[in-house]
Amino acid sequence: MNLQGQSIFGSESHAGTGANFSAFNPATGEALAPVFQSATIEDLHAAVQLAEDAFRVYGKLSGKDKGKFLRHIAAGIEGIANDLVERAHLETALPKKRLQGEVARTANQLRLFALVVEEGSWRMARIDTGDAARTPLPKPDIRSQLQPLGPVAIFGASNFPLAFSVAGGDTASALAAGNPVIVKAHPSHPGTSELVGQMICQSVRDCGLPSGVFSLLFDAGTQIGAALVQHPFVKAVGFTGSLTTGKELMQLAASRPEPIPCYAEMGSTNPLFVLPAALKTRGSQIAKGFFESFTLGVGQFCTKPGMIFLPDGKDTDSFLNVLKALVQQASAGIMLNKNICSNYTKAVALRKRQKNVRILAEAVSLSAENLSHACPVIFEVGADGWIEDPELAEEIFGPATLVIRYKDREQLQQLARALQGHLTATLHETDNDLLEFGGLIEILERKVGRLLLNGFPTGVEVCHAMVHGGPYPATSDGRSTSVGSQAICRFTRPMCYQDFPQSALPDELKNSNPLGILRLLNGEYTRTAVE
Amino acid sequence: MNLQGQSIFGSESHAGTGANFSAFNPATGEALAPVFQSATIEDLHAAVQLAEDAFRVYGKLSGKDKGKFLRHIAAGIEGIANDLVERAHLETALPKKRLQGEVARTANQLRLFALVVEEGSWRMARIDTGDAARTPLPKPDIRSQLQPLGPVAIFGASNFPLAFSVAGGDTASALAAGNPVIVKAHPSHPGTSELVGQMICQSVRDCGLPSGVFSLLFDAGTQIGAALVQHPFVKAVGFTGSLTTGKELMQLAASRPEPIPCYAEMGSTNPLFVLPAALKTRGSQIAKGFFESFTLGVGQFCTKPGMIFLPDGKDTDSFLNVLKALVQQASAGIMLNKNICSNYTKAVALRKRQKNVRILAEAVSLSAENLSHACPVIFEVGADGWIEDPELAEEIFGPATLVIRYKDREQLQQLARALQGHLTATLHETDNDLLEFGGLIEILERKVGRLLLNGFPTGVEVCHAMVHGGPYPATSDGRSTSVGSQAICRFTRPMCYQDFPQSALPDELKNSNPLGILRLLNGEYTRTAVE
Repeated sequence: MNLQGQSIFGSESHAGTGANFSAFNPATGEALAPVFQSATIEDLHAAVQLAEDAFRVYGKLSGKDKGKFLRHIAAGIEGIANDLVERAHLETALPKKRLQGEVARTANQLRLFALVVEEGSWRMARIDTGDAARTPLPKPDIRSQLQPLGPVAIFGASNFPLAFSVAGGDTASALAAGNPVIVKAHPSHPGTSELVGQMICQSVRDCGLPSGVFSLLFDAGTQIGAALVQHPFVKAVGFTGSLTTGKELMQLAASRPEPIPCYAEMGSTNPLFVLPAALKTRGSQIAKGFFESFTLGVGQFCTKPGMIFLPDGKDTDSFLNVLKALVQQASAGIMLNKNICSNYTKAVALRKRQKNVRILAEAVSLSAENLSHACPVIFEVGADGWIEDPELAEEIFGPATLVIRYKDREQLQQLARALQGHLTATLHETDNDLLEFGGLIEILERKVGRLLLNGFPTGVEVCHAMVHGGPYPATSDGRSTSVGSQAICRFTRPMCYQDFPQSALPDELKNSNPLGILRLLNGEYTRTAVE
Repeated sequence: MNLQGQSIFGSESHAGTGANFSAFNPATGEALAPVFQSATIEDLHAAVQLAEDAFRVYGKLSGKDKGKFLRHIAAGIEGIANDLVERAHLETALPKKRLQGEVARTANQLRLFALVVEEGSWRMARIDTGDAARTPLPKPDIRSQLQPLGPVAIFGASNFPLAFSVAGGDTASALAAGNPVIVKAHPSHPGTSELVGQMICQSVRDCGLPSGVFSLLFDAGTQIGAALVQHPFVKAVGFTGSLTTGKELMQLAASRPEPIPCYAEMGSTNPLFVLPAALKTRGSQIAKGFFESFTLGVGQFCTKPGMIFLPDGKDTDSFLNVLKALVQQASAGIMLNKNICSNYTKAVALRKRQKNVRILAEAVSLSAENLSHACPVIFEVGADGWIEDPELAEEIFGPATLVIRYKDREQLQQLARALQGHLTATLHETDNDLLEFGGLIEILERKVGRLLLNGFPTGVEVCHAMVHGGPYPATSDGRSTSVGSQAICRFTRPMCYQDFPQSALPDELKNSNPLGILRLLNGEYTRTAVE
């Protein structure tokens, strides 16, 4: 494991002259070697200029060659899996088994996008052939397809040091679409970031691509990130993190002389609804699943269910008895870093003092004073109290959740209508419940990006149909997903060619359809050539 | 022709208590009956509440029923074509023949969207079937498709009183996707707006839809429009108009407690490049086409070519002689309204005083003092002068254009690189030109939404492949088009269902594929059912 502690651009590591910083082992509080150097604004300018230069070549690269590149990165990451797991474990305290899974997921994500670009139909090619004989005016030949935007700025997330970080979903989708990427590394796992960054740069070299296709910048603070979003060559932003930072980036992106798209995934409370018949039939099973879901990864998932709605009555009393016992027996977990843990501790303390809120159960910390340890906790609030206080619907990042009891169908619908945007909502139900509570789904369809039945929202399948997104404030832009192959469309826009000769058209739009992609030809979806 | 001069919502006309205003005949300056009453904020709240209520039904309406509704509107508009042309001619001074064409285009646009929703594949349905036996974790069943957003606010444009107004492309695409629409009528053609609004409301009733599916609000000022964009039930904005107003709406939409998508098409200068061999071969033909294009509709097209780049030399001298003669012989045209004409007059006067700019030719107005008359004018500036002064690349709305001569390929590329975002760019070229100037296309692909060869950008074909959009400041959001069937995706977002039973899924996502639509099933595009 050869870490330089330096930003990477132009295919080389560069000593920054900005503030030094270190990663910390959240389990011990110890600083980890090496010391990392923050990039300078000059470094940033160099990286963005390289990306702009690289776009002229990379933006035109064939799907086949982009697929080869993405697969090369995937294999490279698997090749250093042991080093990655070792370092990420030190930097995040996430269990090694989970990190092994994350390596696999990161590689599979890259390969999913490789499949998509190799197949090629993602470009949504459309062809309307001309008709010189049409009256009163000849009909022009019009063809269009999605094209990449240009250099994209990606911000790594702290809670998935691989799958939502340097080579995570945002980077994979931006690269797949043909955009050079500049990653601002998350300072909480810089060593993991550098290992992945080195591997991507190696892949850039091995595939003979311009060095500006990928850069990795370190910064202890926010200067580099802000300057990146404001740089005129940067054409879009991808971010996963807190609502506060997400809103700052949205604001920066919108107030540029040329506003640009900003895809910020800002977290969510992921309401979970248990309906009466389901509760009666399998309450204790749901309680166990729910406990596992909201405490998974010490509650550090954007899809953690942070609110559970239960019907008034003795079935809920039994449900909560199971849940309380699980929480009371739980042990503390180590959070990703001191800052996150301190925010969690403060948020829990604040909630304990909140009007109408009572604590149902809390695990007893073995080392409450220690570093980054956090304990699961369940709160309860009445339906009216919850509606009165919108703060109670906000995310607490960590293993906390909130119980809200509802009286009847009407009140449940009222509660659902009061929700803001979330990534997910989950219903535990039986067929009879759905008949009685059917209206609930229609309400929730307007509130979230993904609706689950009888499951748990943690665990986001990486596939074609996944939507990991949702209305504001879950994300900055509910029209997109940051997980799954649909994410490739985020960093694109449609481009139209009128009356172009065959030789000047991109392959995707040529009559012969040399790539064999699906196209909308004069209103019909087909892979056949234009006659 | 029965005009009330009143806003329409809840399927009825309502007397507003806001300021009164009138339409004016730009040819005579006379006020046209009736007096129109501005809506009140209470009217606005009522209309938006009705739209929100209507969404529960309309958002779930089948493609077949939406198609029927759109076709009903189209037929209704054709049924009152004579009244529409008569009134629109009085209100805009646009020639009747042009307005007849616009009626046809408006109806055809509605029918194009009817086709799209009846066919159904626009929803981009995706299905990844589950696998309970997968290890280490079972694979969930994941299905997603595009769904409508909710009530949409549409702002009519002044320059297309039918095709970009009350029942124009924005309204058609929003309705097609399943969104109720609230139109803020353009005060420059309120009678035309009311006629179309009445017809849409009649169609809502005839099709048995909730009255809130469509509302039309009048306002002499900006209060209603601003309140509409800020209303919490409104989920997206469509606008065609000036950069100034577009930027205001963008700002309002972005600064809401819940920011919403704002699609503002804000105009463009549509650079046109003439390459040397094309100029030599058919210079005078290009000059004639260019003259017709920049003066078409008194220069009041968003796609008017407002800049033309010509190679230094005697071929350009000849070209300009043809062009100058055409301009000098041209007569004045009547602009859409006094305000637009006064802005044009001011912009032309300002440009005449601008450093480095000289006037090449100007038509002599027959009635320079009169009302809304505007005369074609051509300016010229040197390449260096143009690059120094970014204002020269800004749109003058009206029959003005600017000639810039380039020395060589290098300077032409430098000029192209200095461009901001535009809706279109056009090249007049021969095969030899393209060999020599090929790099120009790659530069322009980053600057515009549509590239034309050997044509003229005015005249936007309504079809599947059209892109009427482009990077900022041509539009607020270059990821979309406001003309053509792709516009249906603007007012949607993807929605995902995990482990839903067949009975609870939308038809589009059911195993049997009852609608027969194209779906991405486990990574393959197919219309077959799920086995």
